[in-house]
Amino acid sequence: MFSIREIADALGAEAVGDTELKISHAAEPQDAGPDALAMAMSPKYAEALSAGTARAAMVWDGADWQAMGLSAAIYVTRPRLAMSGVTAMLDPGQREAPGIHPTAVIDPSAEIGADVQIGPLVVIGANAKIGAGSLIGAHCFIGADVTIGINANLREMVSIGARVTIGDRFRAQPGARVAADGFSYVTPETSGVENARKTLGNQGEAKAQSWVRIHSLGSVRIGNDVEIGANCTIDNGTIRDTVIGNGTKLDNQVHIGHNCRIGNDCLLCGQTGLSGSVDVGDNVVLGGQCGVADNLFIGSGVIAGGGTKILSNVPAGRVMMGYPAVKMDTHTEIYKAQRRLPRLMRDLDALKKAVFK
Amino acid sequence: MFSIREIADALGAEAVGDTELKISHAAEPQDAGPDALAMAMSPKYAEALSAGTARAAMVWDGADWQAMGLSAAIYVTRPRLAMSGVTAMLDPGQREAPGIHPTAVIDPSAEIGADVQIGPLVVIGANAKIGAGSLIGAHCFIGADVTIGINANLREMVSIGARVTIGDRFRAQPGARVAADGFSYVTPETSGVENARKTLGNQGEAKAQSWVRIHSLGSVRIGNDVEIGANCTIDNGTIRDTVIGNGTKLDNQVHIGHNCRIGNDCLLCGQTGLSGSVDVGDNVVLGGQCGVADNLFIGSGVIAGGGTKILSNVPAGRVMMGYPAVKMDTHTEIYKAQRRLPRLMRDLDALKKAVFK
Amino acid sequence: MFSIREIADALGAEAVGDTELKISHAAEPQDAGPDALAMAMSPKYAEALSAGTARAAMVWDGADWQAMGLSAAIYVTRPRLAMSGVTAMLDPGQREAPGIHPTAVIDPSAEIGADVQIGPLVVIGANAKIGAGSLIGAHCFIGADVTIGINANLREMVSIGARVTIGDRFRAQPGARVAADGFSYVTPETSGVENARKTLGNQGEAKAQSWVRIHSLGSVRIGNDVEIGANCTIDNGTIRDTVIGNGTKLDNQVHIGHNCRIGNDCLLCGQTGLSGSVDVGDNVVLGGQCGVADNLFIGSGVIAGGGTKILSNVPAGRVMMGYPAVKMDTHTEIYKAQRRLPRLMRDLDALKKAVFK
Repeated sequence: MFSIREIADALGAEAVGDTELKISHAAEPQDAGPDALAMAMSPKYAEALSAGTARAAMVWDGADWQAMGLSAAIYVTRPRLAMSGVTAMLDPGQREAPGIHPTAVIDPSAEIGADVQIGPLVVIGANAKIGAGSLIGAHCFIGADVTIGINANLREMVSIGARVTIGDRFRAQPGARVAADGFSYVTPETSGVENARKTLGNQGEAKAQSWVRIHSLGSVRIGNDVEIGANCTIDNGTIRDTVIGNGTKLDNQVHIGHNCRIGNDCLLCGQTGLSGSVDVGDNVVLGGQCGVADNLFIGSGVIAGGGTKILSNVPAGRVMMGYPAVKMDTHTEIYKAQRRLPRLMRDLDALKKAVFK
Repeated sequence: MFSIREIADALGAEAVGDTELKISHAAEPQDAGPDALAMAMSPKYAEALSAGTARAAMVWDGADWQAMGLSAAIYVTRPRLAMSGVTAMLDPGQREAPGIHPTAVIDPSAEIGADVQIGPLVVIGANAKIGAGSLIGAHCFIGADVTIGINANLREMVSIGARVTIGDRFRAQPGARVAADGFSYVTPETSGVENARKTLGNQGEAKAQSWVRIHSLGSVRIGNDVEIGANCTIDNGTIRDTVIGNGTKLDNQVHIGHNCRIGNDCLLCGQTGLSGSVDVGDNVVLGGQCGVADNLFIGSGVIAGGGTKILSNVPAGRVMMGYPAVKMDTHTEIYKAQRRLPRLMRDLDALKKAVFK
Repeated sequence: MFSIREIADALGAEAVGDTELKISHAAEPQDAGPDALAMAMSPKYAEALSAGTARAAMVWDGADWQAMGLSAAIYVTRPRLAMSGVTAMLDPGQREAPGIHPTAVIDPSAEIGADVQIGPLVVIGANAKIGAGSLIGAHCFIGADVTIGINANLREMVSIGARVTIGDRFRAQPGARVAADGFSYVTPETSGVENARKTLGNQGEAKAQSWVRIHSLGSVRIGNDVEIGANCTIDNGTIRDTVIGNGTKLDNQVHIGHNCRIGNDCLLCGQTGLSGSVDVGDNVVLGGQCGVADNLFIGSGVIAGGGTKILSNVPAGRVMMGYPAVKMDTHTEIYKAQRRLPRLMRDLDALKKAVFK
């Protein structure tokens, strides 16, 4: 239970009305009962709020809280930022038990920091180090020689392969995989793929061959304040480590190939994939289901819309879209022209008749 | 072992010949031995059937079973529907042991229904409820306060986060993840992404900033008769629950973002992804690798072909295709025009010469 | 520790200088210390090598090893092939403990070969057979009646469903799923999807219906020398087995639908998906995020660029690209024409004015 005053203070926001009123949870305006803080940060929620039984709400700048029948209100200027503060306060977590569960299998050489919670059936390998205040969910696997910083929060069934190093405040959602082996093969002689890439389409006379494996000797190095989504996969580097910078966030089912280097504060949305050896700058945002071909460079501040497939280097600051990716305004222009294509075909036929007949 | 009579009766189909003949399993016509029921529901299988050693077959309407050397046959009119019935009868399952495996870690406050099978190394959290007749595969994780209805069937390594509610007859394939945290972040000040979305391409003067997390306070609510595929991911809602309606089926590696609401009897094929806050009606079918941008509305009865990327609302009943998605017949028209584009370029050059020179 | 001589001999390569010099690991030229073998197989590394403290390197044909301050060098002609040999020699693995971990849950009827390592909390089902020399990582699940050949290497949290058969030297990365049930449903009467597929866009008057499940009676059959990536999913066949041929490699998050038949020595890159009943020949290479619609045929030697969506059969030897997939040179031509579309629109308007006014 928090009072309206406590929440407003934590957000640095203005509270009005009965600021000692206590709420137990947040709710959408139409669902909010008398113990809820209704999240009503836009005028579109006015009606639902008036119709409901909420006594307190976070409201938009200029809202008439008394007219909507509230006893108390918190005024916010940047709603999603306020949402961040209030959801952090009210997060009930997964109700993990404190301490180390007796069924966890922890190598005696592992170093477990103070106040670490370790769930049932967790496996922690030789010489692994878990920072103080971390929470390791049920069924997690932490490989040999892994180092994780303080205050990590791993949900259930996360796996982290040998020799990975991770900074502080790491978060991983269920089933996230760090340090799979890279997907790297070679044929004894020149392959059709090598020819087709050189010629953009002609695989030449290359004969059929079997693939020989290139092993991953590198591992993965992850900075501070990184979060990775459910069932993500991050591959080991071949010789050096694959690198993910501070503050970068990966959504569910994102795939990061071997040798990638991702900068700070990037956002990679659901099901996006980077091939091997992609270099990504800082503050890059890739929408859902984007793809980046191998060995490319994506400059800092690049933004790509959902479904964009990047097949060549992208300079810093560009906004991209399409398959193959082009600048978003070019994409819009091409797209409009495409939709006019069938009519254009008919116009052209008419012209040909008029000119040549 | 079932007799031809028993199978035909279960399917409501007509059986001919020695209907007391017993079969032990189903087989494709070319592989079918004397103990198999050959699945030969189209004339294209006639040759394989005649050449093989099958004594009994499910055959197409009008097949001459005696000419193909069979001792018995079952006539079906809608082959795939008959396939459903016969595969349900003959499914050998995973041969799970009855009862609760001694290595399962079950919180004393959990309520386990009658005739529930729980595999080795399962973890079940506080106050979780598992309905009667359910089967929980090896290595599954059921979080605190989860409710699952009767006759659930979870394969190995499924994880279900805290506070999820699931209806009856739920099925989940290996590695499916329910209730990961949503992917939701905000920058303290307006970001380049916000600008680029507003302007469709111009990120303006936004400065580089770090991302602040919005926690997920909601959970996931799943109806009756839902099935989710291997390594699927379904995210928690932010304030309210993410919702999946009755009878909806998700294929492998499908991703459902936070706050999505999916209706009844939808089919989402392999590797399809929904961003956050997508509203999907009833009886919607999305082919493989479809994507839907955030905050969109997909009306009931919409069908989208494989690879379709939906970037704007789709009214009920539409058949869609393409990136960005358009009506399928528009897509076909555009596609044909595209293939003619190189020739069109040459025609236009000729015209320009003729007119302007 | 290996001597330069030992490594060169293993690679069948020429060594020069102090070939008794010992190295402990491989490193990229800029990171290579005195105990490292610097991987410098292209002239672009000359500067980094000269500036660093490496004493030994693998170098390109024609490199002047003495001028770069090295004590020893190995000359290679096909760098990635040499990389394969040297990474296999130097791979430190995951440091798994020998023997069978006491927490593993192994059915008494399972047959475990000689020198098999089994990690903590592994589950092995009834009548499963694990070939000699195999390594089963922590938290793996091997279902009933599964057969795995010799020298398998399974990383953590791999799951393999009942009745799967796998050849020798199988490798699986963390979270790979073999033998999920196929995604196969049917409506009691003709559905809108069936109509839309027939008419390419018109779903007709089909009424809304619920989906009836077709169970998977088949399993999965995998050849020798196959590797599957992290969080991959491979579905069971409906009546017969889904099949993956010898030497085929699947990258992370690849999805193989029910009844697919994949030939030998194929390479399927990250997040590629095959729908049900796809037939793939030998030596096929599909780039990242490719998709193949159901019931198609992909001939031997086909190569598809990243993001290609294959919606019709592809004859052997073709190089493909695009959505929908076309021959790569056609795609390049279309793409160039598309980029010129906006200008073409303007040209056409000018022509229309000139001709019709």
